[in-house]
Amino acid sequence: MLEELKRQVLEANLELPKKNLVIYTWGNVSAIDREQGLVVIKPSGVPYEELRAEDLPVVDLDGNKVEGELNPSSDTATHLVLYKAFPEIGGVVHTHSPWCTKWAQAGRGISALGTTHADYFYGEIPCTRKLTPLEIASEYEKNTGEVIVETFKDLNPNFTPGVIVNNHGPFNWGKNPLKAVENAVIMEEIAKLAYYTQSLTPEIEPIDDQLLDKHFLRKHGKNAYYGQVQNVKN
Amino acid sequence: MLEELKRQVLEANLELPKKNLVIYTWGNVSAIDREQGLVVIKPSGVPYEELRAEDLPVVDLDGNKVEGELNPSSDTATHLVLYKAFPEIGGVVHTHSPWCTKWAQAGRGISALGTTHADYFYGEIPCTRKLTPLEIASEYEKNTGEVIVETFKDLNPNFTPGVIVNNHGPFNWGKNPLKAVENAVIMEEIAKLAYYTQSLTPEIEPIDDQLLDKHFLRKHGKNAYYGQVQNVKN
Amino acid sequence: MLEELKRQVLEANLELPKKNLVIYTWGNVSAIDREQGLVVIKPSGVPYEELRAEDLPVVDLDGNKVEGELNPSSDTATHLVLYKAFPEIGGVVHTHSPWCTKWAQAGRGISALGTTHADYFYGEIPCTRKLTPLEIASEYEKNTGEVIVETFKDLNPNFTPGVIVNNHGPFNWGKNPLKAVENAVIMEEIAKLAYYTQSLTPEIEPIDDQLLDKHFLRKHGKNAYYGQVQNVKN
Amino acid sequence: MLEELKRQVLEANLELPKKNLVIYTWGNVSAIDREQGLVVIKPSGVPYEELRAEDLPVVDLDGNKVEGELNPSSDTATHLVLYKAFPEIGGVVHTHSPWCTKWAQAGRGISALGTTHADYFYGEIPCTRKLTPLEIASEYEKNTGEVIVETFKDLNPNFTPGVIVNNHGPFNWGKNPLKAVENAVIMEEIAKLAYYTQSLTPEIEPIDDQLLDKHFLRKHGKNAYYGQVQNVKN
Repeated sequence: MLEELKRQVLEANLELPKKNLVIYTWGNVSAIDREQGLVVIKPSGVPYEELRAEDLPVVDLDGNKVEGELNPSSDTATHLVLYKAFPEIGGVVHTHSPWCTKWAQAGRGISALGTTHADYFYGEIPCTRKLTPLEIASEYEKNTGEVIVETFKDLNPNFTPGVIVNNHGPFNWGKNPLKAVENAVIMEEIAKLAYYTQSLTPEIEPIDDQLLDKHFLRKHGKNAYYGQVQNVKN
Repeated sequence: MLEELKRQVLEANLELPKKNLVIYTWGNVSAIDREQGLVVIKPSGVPYEELRAEDLPVVDLDGNKVEGELNPSSDTATHLVLYKAFPEIGGVVHTHSPWCTKWAQAGRGISALGTTHADYFYGEIPCTRKLTPLEIASEYEKNTGEVIVETFKDLNPNFTPGVIVNNHGPFNWGKNPLKAVENAVIMEEIAKLAYYTQSLTPEIEPIDDQLLDKHFLRKHGKNAYYGQVQNVKN
Repeated sequence: MLEELKRQVLEANLELPKKNLVIYTWGNVSAIDREQGLVVIKPSGVPYEELRAEDLPVVDLDGNKVEGELNPSSDTATHLVLYKAFPEIGGVVHTHSPWCTKWAQAGRGISALGTTHADYFYGEIPCTRKLTPLEIASEYEKNTGEVIVETFKDLNPNFTPGVIVNNHGPFNWGKNPLKAVENAVIMEEIAKLAYYTQSLTPEIEPIDDQLLDKHFLRKHGKNAYYGQVQNVKN
Repeated sequence: MLEELKRQVLEANLELPKKNLVIYTWGNVSAIDREQGLVVIKPSGVPYEELRAEDLPVVDLDGNKVEGELNPSSDTATHLVLYKAFPEIGGVVHTHSPWCTKWAQAGRGISALGTTHADYFYGEIPCTRKLTPLEIASEYEKNTGEVIVETFKDLNPNFTPGVIVNNHGPFNWGKNPLKAVENAVIMEEIAKLAYYTQSLTPEIEPIDDQLLDKHFLRKHGKNAYYGQVQNVKN
């Protein structure tokens, strides 16, 4: 079942080492079939070079495995919360990519400091609050998803396709798994730029709203004029 | 038309990912035919590996497309302003290369801190002022060009073949598109050196004028003695 | 003798340049045959590309060479102290990998600042005290081992599979030589993350014990649920 | 003439881009035939991939070209001063390698902060004073050599095989051109380590003399025991 989606999930997972977002097995990508309510996800702890599309586990939105021999990623519960809360996303990716992880360990969100950021993220990339000891002790991975959703209560996840999880690392999403990974690559680049910008000018302020609007909307708004056809990226 | 110029513009665009100045489609190179007043430029949003010389759009200096199916780069208006204001340049390049973009986001120019800088840039690489909300709201890309020209009102663009656009990233130019990209590669390296120099010695001062003159002029002046033949680089 | 162990030691040594832990001959891996009390180790100063399994020297736990033409690594005495003090380890690696060496030169241990750290190291990666002039003057390499053991008097080396040797660089270990190198690669990555985290937030505190426990134990405890089979990594 | 020496100089120059010490033509290596008093050096401004052994210019110690069509490196006069002042060196290399150039631009020498440094450099890597306007105006490249020699008036160039030239970049030397380049690669690594060490612990002090002696002498002294045969590296 879901052969085409599995192929996409495989391809998106293989992007992670290619784009230098992971070493060893430090990341996982999933995708959802919205009609069937089923999620294909990387199996836990399997090296990318051994992944085969037909081995990718399939789970339902309650986390029950409906196909596959292998255990799904230990982060599966986080992915499922995101699919349930953000109805327009089709793919989710989690890694420990270095630059985003540095911001995560510092417990800080990433302000919009330039047009590179504004081209893809419509304002600050937020950092979640820390989980409480209770949230860690029980259903940790599910609670990781919940704290992301809580962070987005006043944010549009289609306009801010990623988050920094405090003490941990980044999650990204998109309309499909490859787009989710593209957003992860770009957020990693933005995290790097922001680190050095703040180091050069510690009291740096976010760019003005006009410039943020201009760059985000020339790529993503209904009057977007970047590229060859009107497209909305997320 | 302009087959040879298109070939050069293609080659120069392909240098961008090779020299690690861009990821995805984060940069564009153009070149001008001064006799005909026509500019060949990268099409908007097309991946470098899909570019073909014959597909490169041609525009006149007012921005009217005179050849090609594809939309020209969304930054075309900026390139055109530079060609009109700087009569000796033959190629223009814009990227979001990481080190220059960090300085751009910090809103800072790059002082001449060593002979590497002096070999190519005759003094500080300036940073533009920020655009006003009005300049952003209307004709944003054209105004980006205008603020660069304003920054160079007392500077010789042939001796300072690049600029940091505030909040945004670098523009470079040269006598042809490949030379423009070479200047971009070198400015990226200089931006990196300057970051770490300032971190080691925060109160660092620019090098003395004598040393600046010596290095710039041994490569670029009329008595240049670097290399195998007298050449003026810009 | 020990052909299979020599093959493993060769493979583990070849990982060092592949994973960018060394330049030139700046690192060495060994492994122990616990039954025979014999250690296979890289020969001193031999480039990795010239190493052959059959040339690897074998020494006993007193440092006497029992096989091989080549001199064992000048750091052999340090390895031997670790094998004697840490009975469960099967492989040891020493390098001058850049990020760990920076912390070593700064004389600082690496606090657990995020879940990446907690996935592999159960708390701070300690830094040894400096050796005294006397400890340097006589039996320097042996004393380097002794100061590591002293540092671990209240630590479980299986839960903290590495150390920063003051002024010098990292040592890592594991149940076999490849696992030791994997721990070295991961410690290098953690050292990099920690540097930037502290730069972003100088007053950063270690993560809470609950989060440390959660991540370390989901991978390493007896109720570990990461991966495809229950496994204890060290 | 000097075919074997030309072959070595070619090989050493080709190491520069391979080891990431240069971009474009930002470095040059030379070697001396002490018996004949002749120096083979890279021609000025020629890309490494176009270099051929038979095209390398030969100059005498007064800088007169005795063979070759091409102009020798514009830095030739600096090389010649070093060969005359340091009688045991056989090769010289100058680059704008990034980490050493950062220290040069900051006008700072590199203290011995760890055993990696002590393995190759017997104490601080010094930074020259700045040249005076007069020294820049006339015979600049020769004066660059003179200020290096002045910096070494109380130093043994065989024990400190490199220097930081203020505002400029590194020079290195060795018993032959390949060894000179090896020293340049190592000094670049040490410069990187030192930058981050100082950032982690700004008030860092050099390592104790005992540790400096131990590491330098176990590799370079007459009782050296590193490697497979007694060797003195410089």
